[in-house]
Amino acid sequence: MLKTPYLLFLGDAPDQLAAKVAQGVRDWRPEFALGQLRLPGCRADLGIPDLDAEAAWNAGARTLVIGVANRGGVFSPAWKACLIDALVRGYDLAAGLHTLLRDDPDLSAAAAAHGRRLFDVRLPVDTYPIADGVKRSGKRCLAVGTDCSVGKMYTALAMEKVMRARGMKATFRATGQTGILVTGSGVPLDAVVADFMAGAVEWLTPGNDPDHWDLIEGQGSLFHVSYSGVTLALIHGGQPDALILCDEPTRPHMRGLPDYKLPSLEALQDLALSLARIANPSCRVVGVSVNTQALDEAAAKAHLAAVEDRLGLPATDPFRFGAEALVDALDGI
Amino acid sequence: MLKTPYLLFLGDAPDQLAAKVAQGVRDWRPEFALGQLRLPGCRADLGIPDLDAEAAWNAGARTLVIGVANRGGVFSPAWKACLIDALVRGYDLAAGLHTLLRDDPDLSAAAAAHGRRLFDVRLPVDTYPIADGVKRSGKRCLAVGTDCSVGKMYTALAMEKVMRARGMKATFRATGQTGILVTGSGVPLDAVVADFMAGAVEWLTPGNDPDHWDLIEGQGSLFHVSYSGVTLALIHGGQPDALILCDEPTRPHMRGLPDYKLPSLEALQDLALSLARIANPSCRVVGVSVNTQALDEAAAKAHLAAVEDRLGLPATDPFRFGAEALVDALDGI
Repeated sequence: MLKTPYLLFLGDAPDQLAAKVAQGVRDWRPEFALGQLRLPGCRADLGIPDLDAEAAWNAGARTLVIGVANRGGVFSPAWKACLIDALVRGYDLAAGLHTLLRDDPDLSAAAAAHGRRLFDVRLPVDTYPIADGVKRSGKRCLAVGTDCSVGKMYTALAMEKVMRARGMKATFRATGQTGILVTGSGVPLDAVVADFMAGAVEWLTPGNDPDHWDLIEGQGSLFHVSYSGVTLALIHGGQPDALILCDEPTRPHMRGLPDYKLPSLEALQDLALSLARIANPSCRVVGVSVNTQALDEAAAKAHLAAVEDRLGLPATDPFRFGAEALVDALDGI
Repeated sequence: MLKTPYLLFLGDAPDQLAAKVAQGVRDWRPEFALGQLRLPGCRADLGIPDLDAEAAWNAGARTLVIGVANRGGVFSPAWKACLIDALVRGYDLAAGLHTLLRDDPDLSAAAAAHGRRLFDVRLPVDTYPIADGVKRSGKRCLAVGTDCSVGKMYTALAMEKVMRARGMKATFRATGQTGILVTGSGVPLDAVVADFMAGAVEWLTPGNDPDHWDLIEGQGSLFHVSYSGVTLALIHGGQPDALILCDEPTRPHMRGLPDYKLPSLEALQDLALSLARIANPSCRVVGVSVNTQALDEAAAKAHLAAVEDRLGLPATDPFRFGAEALVDALDGI
């Protein structure tokens, strides 16, 4: 979908966190991260070459990816000059901003005049079928969370990286805007019309080699009442063979829902498995991924050991301790 | 949303079944069914006065509801003359057809020229929030099915009718096109964007009197992999106090999914209750609604008795034997 490699636009990012989309590309698809384009005042740095649009074009970049949020939802004059210059030079633009590129009249006009494409990856670009539930060849792994934003995307990307390093056939399948920008394609599932959610997931994870694994990016949580329907569409459209449970153990309540406590990993395991086995009776829960960033190393290791003991499953923090244990757990499925 | 009462357009319906949307209005909102408009060759009859557009207008009708499917998805010249005449006279048009009214250039032009509205009830007309999961006042009952199209809408409408006859406060809340045309408002949930599904259900079933019941129209099934996400959004957005299990006991496989068997009522009860209690810990399953149309009366009664015995819950076919037992079961909630 997106032409690669990218020139990563950091604009005037006030800090490193503001450039987390660009950082995601740098971390997970370094081969796409040809260079960074920073404006005066930028306080983020990806540790890759600073290139202007001309130099990056000559080096092969074909899409300028906006890897930072626009402050206040507006495109500043400095941003806009830079983006229009890129369109004139031949780049497509891609962004996952709330403010759509296509809704800016200047960007739209420049893209039309020069025959470039504006990719607002929050919006679906494909037409999806109604799910048919037919069993597909190949294998699929889905990360499901006790809550939103507990590290499901990171878990799937970290597993993909380990699997590729081992020579296994593995493809991360993006279902959210960051994942789509990182990998260049996917389905922005939360923007798909209800009837087509599960079909979009089937479309995203088609039949494949028997030893190929799709690592499907999870969304929401079965226990998060705002988004649970999206999560179930992933489970039923993805018909996973393996589930990874994801948790952040220090969160006081469900994200954005102060009256809702997080479920236990056991409750998540039982509910996710009951639902997953409707689409794939042989589905198994194979491991646990814990985001331990709020714990010191000793506490993190103690927590992981306790989880392993309680659930009888391998548990790791893939960011801190690697995803190897989760990949090992796919053996024999 | 829709102006009432209606003139029900049956067109050249080839048989009674083709007019089932109009029949739904006639059955469930007889006060909206002012008259029927039939073209030569029509073989459906609602048993209400045949009125032309002028007579119905003079009697108070303000929306012409297309209560029949258009053959081949096209508006024939005879239909179109009739629909444009209605627009000229002052009617809005409403339909739930695959072919949208708004996509027909002649109908669009006539509506614009005369200031009328075209309601394609397959498409959302409102903007919905993200669900916030906050507990609302009032009570809610949701029908959940072992499969799609097992009688969930009928069950909710039949319960509403009994409750109103008893002087209870009860409102059917439509979530599909037929329900919306029947009652004049609602949310076409399968056409809502994924992120807003549960929020649309919250919007549809707002806080109310403590003794008021919303009877929420169910959609899909937790066990139907094509649509289960929509069902879960209904359960989590609706935060029901009471669930009714709906079944059609003679179906060989899930609708449209030949490889999927229907679940048992016990499996549906367990799964639906586990999920519903995330949003409403005091939710209970109160009864079973069985579509027994494929069984003779003795077999139907034997089946219902067996279900009551197995599940320890009242079971009825609300179409055949009335919805009283299901309404009785709401007592004390």
